[in-house]
Amino acid sequence: MLDLSLLGTGGMIPLPDRYLTAMLAKYNGHMLLIDCGEGTQVSMRALGWGFVSLDVILFTHLHADHIAGLPGLLLSLSAYGRAAPLTIVGPEGIEAVVSSLRIIAPELMYPIAFIELPSGGESQLVLGDFHVSALPLSHTLPCCGYSIHIPRAGKFDPERAKAQNIPLVHWSALKRGETVCGFTPDMVLGPPRRGIKVSYVTDSRPTNAIPDFIRGSDLFICEGIYSSDDKIEKAQQYGHMVFSEAAALAKAGDVKELWLTHYSQSLLEPEKEIDSAVRIFENTKAGRDHLCKTLLFED
Amino acid sequence: MLDLSLLGTGGMIPLPDRYLTAMLAKYNGHMLLIDCGEGTQVSMRALGWGFVSLDVILFTHLHADHIAGLPGLLLSLSAYGRAAPLTIVGPEGIEAVVSSLRIIAPELMYPIAFIELPSGGESQLVLGDFHVSALPLSHTLPCCGYSIHIPRAGKFDPERAKAQNIPLVHWSALKRGETVCGFTPDMVLGPPRRGIKVSYVTDSRPTNAIPDFIRGSDLFICEGIYSSDDKIEKAQQYGHMVFSEAAALAKAGDVKELWLTHYSQSLLEPEKEIDSAVRIFENTKAGRDHLCKTLLFED
Repeated sequence: MLDLSLLGTGGMIPLPDRYLTAMLAKYNGHMLLIDCGEGTQVSMRALGWGFVSLDVILFTHLHADHIAGLPGLLLSLSAYGRAAPLTIVGPEGIEAVVSSLRIIAPELMYPIAFIELPSGGESQLVLGDFHVSALPLSHTLPCCGYSIHIPRAGKFDPERAKAQNIPLVHWSALKRGETVCGFTPDMVLGPPRRGIKVSYVTDSRPTNAIPDFIRGSDLFICEGIYSSDDKIEKAQQYGHMVFSEAAALAKAGDVKELWLTHYSQSLLEPEKEIDSAVRIFENTKAGRDHLCKTLLFED
Repeated sequence: MLDLSLLGTGGMIPLPDRYLTAMLAKYNGHMLLIDCGEGTQVSMRALGWGFVSLDVILFTHLHADHIAGLPGLLLSLSAYGRAAPLTIVGPEGIEAVVSSLRIIAPELMYPIAFIELPSGGESQLVLGDFHVSALPLSHTLPCCGYSIHIPRAGKFDPERAKAQNIPLVHWSALKRGETVCGFTPDMVLGPPRRGIKVSYVTDSRPTNAIPDFIRGSDLFICEGIYSSDDKIEKAQQYGHMVFSEAAALAKAGDVKELWLTHYSQSLLEPEKEIDSAVRIFENTKAGRDHLCKTLLFED
């Protein structure tokens, strides 16, 4: 199962009752974070999932409200005893920005590996158990949307294993998709089954590529800086989208559920203003700090 | 009158219920901030004193827990419409560190002036209405304690003004200590009166110079990372002090009141553990986030 939590849902400016937009995912004992604005580590502490198993940080882009909390988080990971490498992924320039910020976090107890995403097209990464796709978005500077996919192997067939005289001791490895002593998973597994897919889009205007990118997601987390269509022009000006535009993407991408996030500080009660989204895509929820969900494999 | 608020009282790691150590002072419509760790701007918003009149930021030192919140605050000041110059004061190296952090806050609507303090001895600065003294402390890297002094001119004597035929229209300027049309303040003012003095010491071991530096302060705000004397050795190791050491400085400096701050995250209820300080200096208070005080001139 994949556990998710919105660490924050605010855009631009951190507020006393709303952390900046970020998301934490946990699968099989490992954690992946998307974005790290000022206060993200505080929200992580409040959530209580711990720190040291954080293996990957994906950055959507290099605006301060999405990255200013990184030096503090890096130092805290050291203080909490992390020793394993940390992977940081982001648009071109991420390594230079992190290096510059690390003037106040020079000494860490673990190495950092960087993956810079090309701005030209979609990227595919395998980061431990997390299979990550990245899509260039349309913001005021290079920005990436992410899909996190947890693949699921085909169903194990014990009759086929017995018929091929595969010793019982190897069955567990084969179930996990590993080759062992010359026995390969395809000898005992059915066709790959549907996994879990979560997509995350902020900050961006709607683009033609987003629906295919998010298609079939169990959960689509998308920015909606304003609730009202009256503010589309203002949203456009800053490279953002309103609630109804996020809902239209959710519908076009045939996702199962939409969570809105990255609210303007002027939007005090987003949960009371989601009508414009619900009319287009019914299963819309206004994200809030520490809104959590556990996604299971089917059947 | 001088208004003060502790914006945070935590050391090293920001917590969901305790911001990092910082202090805000307001006098005559202008604000001065000491330190700006991750979340300081959020605490400022919660306090509600506004942002745009922040003219001066004093940094005690360049550890992340005292400066990581600066890029976000700088951007917020721009967003809130600040146009007047901002003065940033700190130990040698402050300008280089701020420049490096500004990779995520490159465009601001106001200029920044830097004052780097020499590490060799005490410095005196006049920053608007705030008269600031800085003292090198004893930490794991260069660190400054600060005293903020609000001077008070002598008492205006209307009889002397009349006797010298000084027109009534000039009296206000002379009361403020200004020279006007050849009339000088000393013609009508008595000797300078006692002003207001607040001293701030973190992060540091006790030093021989601190008592004279803080002498006679109306309020002395001092770090106390641990409450128990059993932890003096641990405090020493990291260049900090315990509650009783802060109290001994308060007593030696003959201050009026002591507030403790910069607590270890292991210190959950500092207000219940101040006995070791009170035994040495009775008027000790455990600082807490948003503890405020208004200091008035005497009589």
